[in-house]
Amino acid sequence: MMSYGDEAPIAALATVPGVSALALIRTSGKNALDLLSRVFSRPQAIREAPGNTLVHGWIINPAIEKGEKEKKEKGEKIDDVLVSVYRAPRSYTGEDGADISCHGGTATVKALLRVLHGAGFRGALPGEFTFRAFINGKLDLTQAEAVMELVSAKTDGARGRAVSRLAGSLEKELGEIKRLLARVLAGVELRLDYAEDELEDEDAEHLPERSKAEEALGRLNVLARSYRRERLYQEGALVVIAGKPNAGKSSLFNRLLNEERAIVAETPGTTRDWIEGWISLEGVPIRLADTAGLRDSRDRIEENGVSRTRELLSRADGVLYLIDGTRGIAPEDAAFLAEPPGPAGVIGVWNKIDAAPLLPRRSLVGISAKTGQGIEELTRALMTQITSFPSILHGQEQEPPGIATERQKACIDAAAAHIAEGLALADTYAPLDLMAPLFREGINALGEITGQVSTAEILEVMFGAFCVGK
Amino acid sequence: MMSYGDEAPIAALATVPGVSALALIRTSGKNALDLLSRVFSRPQAIREAPGNTLVHGWIINPAIEKGEKEKKEKGEKIDDVLVSVYRAPRSYTGEDGADISCHGGTATVKALLRVLHGAGFRGALPGEFTFRAFINGKLDLTQAEAVMELVSAKTDGARGRAVSRLAGSLEKELGEIKRLLARVLAGVELRLDYAEDELEDEDAEHLPERSKAEEALGRLNVLARSYRRERLYQEGALVVIAGKPNAGKSSLFNRLLNEERAIVAETPGTTRDWIEGWISLEGVPIRLADTAGLRDSRDRIEENGVSRTRELLSRADGVLYLIDGTRGIAPEDAAFLAEPPGPAGVIGVWNKIDAAPLLPRRSLVGISAKTGQGIEELTRALMTQITSFPSILHGQEQEPPGIATERQKACIDAAAAHIAEGLALADTYAPLDLMAPLFREGINALGEITGQVSTAEILEVMFGAFCVGK
Repeated sequence: MMSYGDEAPIAALATVPGVSALALIRTSGKNALDLLSRVFSRPQAIREAPGNTLVHGWIINPAIEKGEKEKKEKGEKIDDVLVSVYRAPRSYTGEDGADISCHGGTATVKALLRVLHGAGFRGALPGEFTFRAFINGKLDLTQAEAVMELVSAKTDGARGRAVSRLAGSLEKELGEIKRLLARVLAGVELRLDYAEDELEDEDAEHLPERSKAEEALGRLNVLARSYRRERLYQEGALVVIAGKPNAGKSSLFNRLLNEERAIVAETPGTTRDWIEGWISLEGVPIRLADTAGLRDSRDRIEENGVSRTRELLSRADGVLYLIDGTRGIAPEDAAFLAEPPGPAGVIGVWNKIDAAPLLPRRSLVGISAKTGQGIEELTRALMTQITSFPSILHGQEQEPPGIATERQKACIDAAAAHIAEGLALADTYAPLDLMAPLFREGINALGEITGQVSTAEILEVMFGAFCVGK
Repeated sequence: MMSYGDEAPIAALATVPGVSALALIRTSGKNALDLLSRVFSRPQAIREAPGNTLVHGWIINPAIEKGEKEKKEKGEKIDDVLVSVYRAPRSYTGEDGADISCHGGTATVKALLRVLHGAGFRGALPGEFTFRAFINGKLDLTQAEAVMELVSAKTDGARGRAVSRLAGSLEKELGEIKRLLARVLAGVELRLDYAEDELEDEDAEHLPERSKAEEALGRLNVLARSYRRERLYQEGALVVIAGKPNAGKSSLFNRLLNEERAIVAETPGTTRDWIEGWISLEGVPIRLADTAGLRDSRDRIEENGVSRTRELLSRADGVLYLIDGTRGIAPEDAAFLAEPPGPAGVIGVWNKIDAAPLLPRRSLVGISAKTGQGIEELTRALMTQITSFPSILHGQEQEPPGIATERQKACIDAAAAHIAEGLALADTYAPLDLMAPLFREGINALGEITGQVSTAEILEVMFGAFCVGK
């Protein structure tokens, strides 16, 4: 198996394969520019190009001599390209390298990669470009992870949060927390250097700078709580529209898809047994599933055999249960609302409010999928239920930094646990030399998040989840 | 409706949308660099950048002020990008412009395009960048068409032919033919300037430089004939595997898919009633359809109602009809071979030759789908049948230039018709001043191919078929 960590010249397609005007092949590594020049129509232009300049020419397959009869050309022309030349350390990876902007289309990209491999480039491992950027100090780990988030962001909200991390907001917050802990640790160590009785201030807290440790713990807890919110922006929520036949499920589905901004599904062409679509509600990607698309359209909810609806409901983050207001609440409706078949909260929706007004005492949201009445109230109720973070949804001026990956969450939890333990020991007036290692561990756990402290295994796992070309 | 032909600043995604490391947004037009600088973190760097250099920075949405409490930042950061700056005339379009290499992912690309539109760029029309390249003399029309071919090339053979046209092979051949015709026309006009009796050489041909006109016509006919071949490389051929149940259709299908280079299907996820796959045979993309995938597996061919197989056979470019050698030729087999149900030629294939040897006198190709025996002979027979160009398939040293589009074909046919008419008139000793316009028309028709002579309507139709961003 190849492994990260060498400086070998690598090459990979960095854009989505398929039919398009252009495609971008990324290269980086030792001798990358020299190797590239050997398959380029103007080798000297590449070799002599200053960093951050563009060179126009042809990629050539030198293995094939063409034009035996007429004047001999050196190699077969593969594609007319624009090469962006980078010189270390001014590049994404921090190494020498080049981005090759070529014509789109699979045959061209394949042929170019074949020639590059022939010239000595090897295929890049997933995330290897970003790995090198990290190794060469161009990005910290939170920024590297933000790169991956950014690429898969489904909504503008998700994108904005990833960009904030890419720009270093999380790194900055972690730096501040670490500085707080370092102050505590410095105080502890200072006091350990002196005998207990040498201390002047008798009123001093047992743990020096205790308030700093408490502040650090508080901020870590805020970060830990942010994880669920950030995941929601990244991965979205599954909202299922259920209800009896003719309650208006498809009308509500279509209205939500039309009124809110529809997002293109990630996997077009996937066939499912229900109809679904992605919308963005206040930046949170919502995967909306209309169970009306299920095959047997009668007695769907009650029937024992309709396992698909149940399966869908069991994975839902929210359920909109529609009631046909013109018919009132049927026994099945009442049963569903009283005992929802999944873990997600259910919002009872009284549809056709334009024809059948909703009595105020009922704890249902009244809408008319036909006229659009009540839809805004419904989406607000849905968002409050899904996010459990009403505050962040109503225009707080500045988003607090948040954590985005399980890896980050584990480190934050570890750091918080160490500090909480340290504070608990302080409450029992335990010796300071038992507390010092805990605060040191806390700082180390935070250092792991940004990559100041990290092991090779952690890195391989993390970058292995990236896409190739990144 | 917007229309081609202005210099307005345009922007478009030039790579395939989706989740990837990078994406490329192309911009071009009047003030493109100034407009871009207004949404860039380092406006001056863009404005002062020399052509063909790279500038690193952030695309900013200036409409949003962020960070009210702390120090105010100017605008919301959208993405960390690399901008390739071009200055007229050294660019693809011949105009000022920039390629923006940004993070991949739909949310980022959407947000960037929104900001660019806000800054004054309009969305590009299909093919508009290439249209401008043509208008500004960077490409002729055959090269512009080659760009589109290149992007959709399915095999390396198709790619190589498009590249050859992009590099100007067709333009060069047309130039040579036009020069031949110009010589003829010059001779005719020279002679028209003098009275018949002033001519010194009594033995001169009635049409001066007649051999040149004949050579031009010959070369035009070669080009016209090349059209079918070039289309075949671009679009591929449909080959249907038919035969009675258990004749070994699926085995042959799988063997061909495994032995020959399989190409990724253009439309993955498309469901069909039969199994199919793309392979590349000597550079020609072959869409192979296995009728064994059809629903009713019994008595497929004979049954009146199996319209799908018939429909498939009616569109086939080639049919491989399999016979189970161990059972011999059944009456249905003989009937199919005697009266094939479609226009394509049928190759009778005697399968299971390893178990049941084929008698030499039979005009069938003997194979064993199981062992692979005879497969090479079969593909050779298939290619000869499909291409009708055996010569080009067996390693001719230099591919002759060919024409690639209906538009080119129509112009070639028109030119050839004019010249043939001119030569026919010459045979009847018709007056030279009747012939001159024909040769002039011939030259014009050829000029239309490269775009030296062209009307606005032709251009709009042609570039409208491009993808956006090209």
